[in-house]
Amino acid sequence: MAESNQPSRHSLRQPYLLFVGDVDLLAAAKTASGLLQWRPDACAGQLRLPGGVDLGLPDMSPETAAAAGVGTMVIGAVNPGGVIPPQWIPAILEALEAGLDVAAGLHQRLNDMPEIAQTARRLGRQLHDVRHADRSFPTGTGARRPGKRVLTVGTDCVVGKKYAALAIEQAMTARGLSADFRATGQTGVLIAGGGVAIDAVVSDFVAGAAEWLSPAAADDHWDVIEGQGSLFHPAYAGVTLGLMHGSQPDALVICHEPVRDRLLSVDYPVQPLDRFIEANLAMARLTSPDVVAAGICLNGGRMSDVEIAEAILRVEGETGLPCCDPIRHGAGRIVDNLLRLVP
Amino acid sequence: MAESNQPSRHSLRQPYLLFVGDVDLLAAAKTASGLLQWRPDACAGQLRLPGGVDLGLPDMSPETAAAAGVGTMVIGAVNPGGVIPPQWIPAILEALEAGLDVAAGLHQRLNDMPEIAQTARRLGRQLHDVRHADRSFPTGTGARRPGKRVLTVGTDCVVGKKYAALAIEQAMTARGLSADFRATGQTGVLIAGGGVAIDAVVSDFVAGAAEWLSPAAADDHWDVIEGQGSLFHPAYAGVTLGLMHGSQPDALVICHEPVRDRLLSVDYPVQPLDRFIEANLAMARLTSPDVVAAGICLNGGRMSDVEIAEAILRVEGETGLPCCDPIRHGAGRIVDNLLRLVP
Repeated sequence: MAESNQPSRHSLRQPYLLFVGDVDLLAAAKTASGLLQWRPDACAGQLRLPGGVDLGLPDMSPETAAAAGVGTMVIGAVNPGGVIPPQWIPAILEALEAGLDVAAGLHQRLNDMPEIAQTARRLGRQLHDVRHADRSFPTGTGARRPGKRVLTVGTDCVVGKKYAALAIEQAMTARGLSADFRATGQTGVLIAGGGVAIDAVVSDFVAGAAEWLSPAAADDHWDVIEGQGSLFHPAYAGVTLGLMHGSQPDALVICHEPVRDRLLSVDYPVQPLDRFIEANLAMARLTSPDVVAAGICLNGGRMSDVEIAEAILRVEGETGLPCCDPIRHGAGRIVDNLLRLVP
Repeated sequence: MAESNQPSRHSLRQPYLLFVGDVDLLAAAKTASGLLQWRPDACAGQLRLPGGVDLGLPDMSPETAAAAGVGTMVIGAVNPGGVIPPQWIPAILEALEAGLDVAAGLHQRLNDMPEIAQTARRLGRQLHDVRHADRSFPTGTGARRPGKRVLTVGTDCVVGKKYAALAIEQAMTARGLSADFRATGQTGVLIAGGGVAIDAVVSDFVAGAAEWLSPAAADDHWDVIEGQGSLFHPAYAGVTLGLMHGSQPDALVICHEPVRDRLLSVDYPVQPLDRFIEANLAMARLTSPDVVAAGICLNGGRMSDVEIAEAILRVEGETGLPCCDPIRHGAGRIVDNLLRLVP
């Protein structure tokens, strides 16, 4: 159950019915496709309006989904401007009437739409606006806590930090380790079924929210924490640093796109990897003095198999760290190194 | 006028009537005494309830104050828990009725108290909850902008960053320079009559808020920006870094208390000054490649004249930077160095 006075701490009932609306491109249904890729077992069916893209899941009405045990309908498509178009509203109301909660990662809040909010309240359903958070966290303490934690850090935004963390969790689970993906962005929260959109937290509470997100755990448990922003991004480095300090990572995994030399959204260069790694470790040592760099995940989405293989060899030679494209190769070699470095 | 949809961007009508309520200790009226110290010309009078401390200002009723041209009544006292006690409410309503706006830097919002909020709305008055901010800022761009900027950075919280910035502004103004104190905390906002409580801004927008706070200016204009937190504080370093990146400082002034070797609120050491300065400059270079350290303000509040003099000589010897206790000595020597280093 979501804690209604703490909307930043989302906890979603799975499995999901994925709502793709009337968007006809898979790219516009990226929340749905990300869920399907990383949590296929959590995706019970799809609900399409006329013209909506087919994800390959069983088509279900909200009533059918509720009868099949679905807990939450996830708005899996994005609409220009991040708003919920009028033609989606009847399906959302129908889902609430059928007994489902509804979750969305859009700028516009479900809770701000009177008809939806009133219907949810009347029926006792939960509305999850996972992009949003409030200030209901304590400030950070910096106190050391047990359990192992690895944080993905990126040389830019949108460079694969979430995918890297999911691939690491997947490889750990495949080795029989106890591991949890800890989500810090809206898509990650939907995939994990919980977490906090860290960039929506009031700045004073970011480190505290990160401490809450990856709490004290058994000595052999791994929390694999999704990073945000970049320590060298002029808009978001503060978010990155607060998340890093609160996470107290035993290890960092660096995420990087070899063919990107300028940041995506601002006129700044991507830092050289050696300098980037050194600076991230230096800042992380404040709350985790023995932190190490355990590997590098390259984003090869715009590279051929040959190009990414060459990039991996070059980066491994330059840094001495195991390197992979987690989408192509998984993160097994990085997990091996994590287990070696953080015994 | 405050922008009602942007409560984080406060702009207050001066002069002020300082409300001290019924608190009988000057320490509990520290907002009022800070205003009186740094903006005596903005303080037209005081309003005391029975038992309230005497600031030495003319006693004024709200009606008298309004007739004398006062724009805003400032709640200048703090009450345990940061709440507004019931016995203060009649005076607040009276001020609104008399034509004054009302400003407070408490945790409890004036805007959340129905009787006060309704009265203000009915009369068209502004309520300024300067501790609070919303997300109504753009994200940062990191684009270079003209004008000169100096940011105070501290080895801990509550170490004198606001006083250092005010002393620097005062010394600049005394030299005939064009300078503005840029407030980033609630007391600073009241002193400056505007600014933003940066630690209340949603983390994604901190750098953007700092860019807004110290905008492009004439080449010879100085913005003197109040720092927040510390780059080596496990709870607040992200706030510090976002403010630093958005501020694009040409120079840093370091604030430090020599007799403090542990942070106040968490179990962490105060960093050695040389390491602290080097790390702050390294991080600031992202958005301001030529940033320099221009001086050190020591907080000598718990030290004798002899002790602070010895500390100043020692720190100057260790760092090679001009050093002062701004409360005792003003910041003139640091301003001289700023003008030499940032021509």
